[in-house]
Amino acid sequence: MARITIIGLGLMGTSLGMALKRADKRGHRITGFDADVKVARKSKGRGAVDHVEDDLAKAVAAAEVVVIATPVRAVKPVLETIAGHLPQGAVVTDVASTKRQVMAWAEELLPRGVSFIGGHPMAGLETSGPDAAKADLFVGARWCLMPGRHATEGALQSVMAMAVSVGAKTLFIDPQEHDLLVAGISHAPLALSAALVASTSRSASWPEMAALAAGGYRDVSRLASGSPTMSVDICLTNGDAIEEWLGRCIAVLEEIRTHVKAQDAEQLIRLFSDAYSERERWLAGVAAERHPKGKVEVPTMVDSAYRTLFGEAMYKQTKRLFELSNNPTLRSRPETEDDKHGSGPAKTPSK
Amino acid sequence: MARITIIGLGLMGTSLGMALKRADKRGHRITGFDADVKVARKSKGRGAVDHVEDDLAKAVAAAEVVVIATPVRAVKPVLETIAGHLPQGAVVTDVASTKRQVMAWAEELLPRGVSFIGGHPMAGLETSGPDAAKADLFVGARWCLMPGRHATEGALQSVMAMAVSVGAKTLFIDPQEHDLLVAGISHAPLALSAALVASTSRSASWPEMAALAAGGYRDVSRLASGSPTMSVDICLTNGDAIEEWLGRCIAVLEEIRTHVKAQDAEQLIRLFSDAYSERERWLAGVAAERHPKGKVEVPTMVDSAYRTLFGEAMYKQTKRLFELSNNPTLRSRPETEDDKHGSGPAKTPSK
Repeated sequence: MARITIIGLGLMGTSLGMALKRADKRGHRITGFDADVKVARKSKGRGAVDHVEDDLAKAVAAAEVVVIATPVRAVKPVLETIAGHLPQGAVVTDVASTKRQVMAWAEELLPRGVSFIGGHPMAGLETSGPDAAKADLFVGARWCLMPGRHATEGALQSVMAMAVSVGAKTLFIDPQEHDLLVAGISHAPLALSAALVASTSRSASWPEMAALAAGGYRDVSRLASGSPTMSVDICLTNGDAIEEWLGRCIAVLEEIRTHVKAQDAEQLIRLFSDAYSERERWLAGVAAERHPKGKVEVPTMVDSAYRTLFGEAMYKQTKRLFELSNNPTLRSRPETEDDKHGSGPAKTPSK
Repeated sequence: MARITIIGLGLMGTSLGMALKRADKRGHRITGFDADVKVARKSKGRGAVDHVEDDLAKAVAAAEVVVIATPVRAVKPVLETIAGHLPQGAVVTDVASTKRQVMAWAEELLPRGVSFIGGHPMAGLETSGPDAAKADLFVGARWCLMPGRHATEGALQSVMAMAVSVGAKTLFIDPQEHDLLVAGISHAPLALSAALVASTSRSASWPEMAALAAGGYRDVSRLASGSPTMSVDICLTNGDAIEEWLGRCIAVLEEIRTHVKAQDAEQLIRLFSDAYSERERWLAGVAAERHPKGKVEVPTMVDSAYRTLFGEAMYKQTKRLFELSNNPTLRSRPETEDDKHGSGPAKTPSK
């Protein structure tokens, strides 16, 4: 089907190669590049790429689609290197965790005649490297897409087709909006995990604590096992949004500390009950999305009918998000509206 | 083997009943009590208890071992109610998450001739209630034990035998020390999870965030799905230690925020690399403990030889923890000692 080059063969790049191979065993011709030859060799061993190329310029010279799967800050030098070697009409996409910087770099560095589609699959593991890769990593995941200013419709369709073929569900979103949202649901959790491990492991009692720590500690600290380089890159390319969300998390922790100090049972039960019911609603929503009743789960975007309607459908999908992103400040949630879940009393289990 | 009464038939009580039944199908005669008759009925349906008694005094009247498996603050009224109805020589234990208050209540309320052994299995799920119970919940878990001042050696052995029979590993610990340690590895994570859910779900952008939130959010927020009543009880019976640990977590989050604001790559890579390697060491330690090389995993505490040596063995096991607990303040970890894991450079994966 396509000549694809994957640059960066860690967890994401290798998982994507494996998923594409599984989706279309013979159709794709996948070239892989990684700055670390050992990583590249492992990735080939996992069946993610047909062959490894150790010269980045050569790796993209005949590519139809180039996927950059490096940590965020490595995207810039990769774009600089490949810019002069991409064939006319090539499509470049990425899978990095933050998007404003990436979109700006692509706009600045790529030549006309090359389409850039920013991408971010909402899938990951706390592990890293090709050994941790999984062919089904993207199944059921949201794959955020942000077409560059000069991207063609055909380029966008290629990247959508790739995302859908590995089981993901595409979502169009503005880069600014994307970075604000993921700061809350992805980067703040990362900081909370790291803060838990840092604070406990710095204690003189850590050896005793470590012996007692169990499943709760394991879950909440899980993201601290992600690649430190990736975490730092995220912090350096989404600083303002992360600062904002760390402030919000700290404020709630201060709120809990105040209630604990005051032994305020009423405030504490309200806070924990609200968190309990919000998370249950979220889980129920996630479950409903995975098992929709009477809905076709994978959009048939390859249908020619869909292709004709493409402009309109994309408009509808993106309208709401773009409206929201007109106001880049994340507002406080109003008490009386925007609550589509109903607001009955929290369900408090008996034990 | 024994007449056991379990008071509180939620996740812990029902799991314990199921585990005891699995360990010794015919030997135990298990009576169950729950303030909520529906919960009690469900628990019986899961096979956790032989019969349900709806009068608490009657439920304990013939018991050899009584296990209180309610949220922490309910332990006190339970002790008040059962105190006058326990047979001479009965053993009372509990599985509550905090221990200083429980030990004090038991000392105050139980008559001489009844032994109290405080207990806390380091096992749990983010779910609650008898439906979520699992017969293997305690397999491989640490079960903290704290003998009351007037407990007999035989009473302690009964509770140890119970814990070992369901697959747990017993650990003797001072209640003060216990409460300080679990504040860090269990109660702080609970607050971090709740703070994540509270801060994100209060945002006007929560519907959009919820649609994008994936595995990382799910893991870090997991403890927010625990029983709110249990969470509040923990906060109200371990306030000082939780306050202390919330302060430490907030301090690290402020540290991260400062580095993010300053775009300080060096400090950020140090922090995330340290957290990464500390967590990997912890995981490796947990794995090593689960699969010890050439060690007998379950202590043969029922051997008569062990029984003879009991005083000495217990002394050795507890000595270090008691020494630590003489200084109730959790000290900062010294930089140059107490690091038994070695201090090589952090392993930073390539992607």
